[in-house]
Amino acid sequence: MTTTVLPLGTASALPTRDRHLSALAVERKGRVLLFDCGEGTQYRLMDADLNRARVDAVFITHLHGDHVYGLMGLLSTLGQLGRAEPVVVAGPAALDRMLREMPGMQHGWLPYDVEFVSLDEGFDRACVYETEELSVTARPLDHRIFTAGYRLAEKTRPGRFDPGRARDLGVTDPRDFGRLQDGETIDVEGGTVDPDDVMGPERQGISVAYVTDTRPCEGGRRLAREADLVYHDATFGDDLSDRAVETGHSTAREAAAVARDAGAQRLLLGHFSARYDTPEPLVEQAREVFPATDAAVELAPTVLDPREKWGE
Amino acid sequence: MTTTVLPLGTASALPTRDRHLSALAVERKGRVLLFDCGEGTQYRLMDADLNRARVDAVFITHLHGDHVYGLMGLLSTLGQLGRAEPVVVAGPAALDRMLREMPGMQHGWLPYDVEFVSLDEGFDRACVYETEELSVTARPLDHRIFTAGYRLAEKTRPGRFDPGRARDLGVTDPRDFGRLQDGETIDVEGGTVDPDDVMGPERQGISVAYVTDTRPCEGGRRLAREADLVYHDATFGDDLSDRAVETGHSTAREAAAVARDAGAQRLLLGHFSARYDTPEPLVEQAREVFPATDAAVELAPTVLDPREKWGE
Repeated sequence: MTTTVLPLGTASALPTRDRHLSALAVERKGRVLLFDCGEGTQYRLMDADLNRARVDAVFITHLHGDHVYGLMGLLSTLGQLGRAEPVVVAGPAALDRMLREMPGMQHGWLPYDVEFVSLDEGFDRACVYETEELSVTARPLDHRIFTAGYRLAEKTRPGRFDPGRARDLGVTDPRDFGRLQDGETIDVEGGTVDPDDVMGPERQGISVAYVTDTRPCEGGRRLAREADLVYHDATFGDDLSDRAVETGHSTAREAAAVARDAGAQRLLLGHFSARYDTPEPLVEQAREVFPATDAAVELAPTVLDPREKWGE
Repeated sequence: MTTTVLPLGTASALPTRDRHLSALAVERKGRVLLFDCGEGTQYRLMDADLNRARVDAVFITHLHGDHVYGLMGLLSTLGQLGRAEPVVVAGPAALDRMLREMPGMQHGWLPYDVEFVSLDEGFDRACVYETEELSVTARPLDHRIFTAGYRLAEKTRPGRFDPGRARDLGVTDPRDFGRLQDGETIDVEGGTVDPDDVMGPERQGISVAYVTDTRPCEGGRRLAREADLVYHDATFGDDLSDRAVETGHSTAREAAAVARDAGAQRLLLGHFSARYDTPEPLVEQAREVFPATDAAVELAPTVLDPREKWGE
């Protein structure tokens, strides 16, 4: 079971011919989760060959237009496509009001429910989305206005059951195999067999952090902790570190320090200021701090496979 | 002085890979006027090589999202580009409230003024934009919700002054040439010379009508009257004429009848339902009624030159 991370837009406020407004898609088993939804995201989903109709949730970081103005159009289009299942929208509390004031977004107009998950200023940590296989948690970031970052994490799976080892230890009833996998201890001749004796180590799933727009901060580091992939605000280079402070953004080097301090595996830089024609200088600066850094490339997929961690 | 009409989006509610959401640009002397502003219009302006920073006015027909969700992003981007001149936004009165509820659109946030021109239900005709050289008027259309169509018209210019003819009639003082052009009658030996004696016929400017989304209606016909180019809703073909009635749209054939009855020169069909892979059948149906019909092609310019009418 792989998870594909696909940047749809890596521009900061001003879109250019090459860079679109903020959105990151995560595709897993044909379902799509979106982090931010700048204007044009519904077009970018088509450009990425992702099925617009399969967007299950949208996580909005903050209410600057370049991160959210595409939400109404996407929700409308889901309606046009005959969506019936609910769609989760998580974000700052004011987003709910914004949506309800938009023509076409009033309650009852869309043919499906929008389940709004509200984040309030002062929150510390919130689980905003959960399925049997994964969850998305939010934490506050440090921007000019109230902003949340997100972490998608697959749930940990139990280790693999080793039937040969169980037989060697004297377990003969096949029903006891199931009991051991359910965590029960089994009596055998001359003693007991614990689940730990016959189960491999727990298998950790993949995790992806989406940390923008923000100064380097504790919320970002926590979201990024040991993540397989971190997408982080790298609006500026070393040349404009003052501007990063003024505008509540990060330099590429600062993003790299967050990834390093969090013990993350890989870092994608994004949200580039339009003044940088190419992100290469930013990548070079970041790699001095955290070598496993790349620039996010729009529509270029990163495929994450948890089996690589399990040695399978 | 030419005027270029450039369809940016010809889709009805659901955008596809080939068709974008509603917007039509009119470019004249490097300035841009926009009719409707569906999501992604600011990207389409770049695709069309039009200067986003030179958008002087946006005319919104109605508050269905596919015609208006691109407005906030465009206004934001104008601010990012350092716009200082005011921008005119005309549309239904509720648009003003919608804008003010959007994060980033509050008064004082943009570095330029938005001059909102409000159209109220029940209006009959309104001049919504005027410069020395042209005006845009609005009239009500017939859709499911309150909708206005627009007509851009260059102002009529005086005829050309014929100095040889003036001399032949006995006008010798060069200052009298100017007086005649200003409409004064001049005394000469043996009588008078009227401006009509020495001025050619008035030179009519070009006019463009934007008529969508609507049933065929009187407002549409008036906007289209003797227009050089009419862009008209042609959401459906003959096969779905019932659906056109139900949804408050027009068939291609109905659009053609409007252009014919209005005495227009040319018709561009647009706002095609996504169910039509190609507009060719719609064009064929329309041409049976009004031969000078084409499908609007996104980013394909139509150049209008009033000198063609003047025989210059």
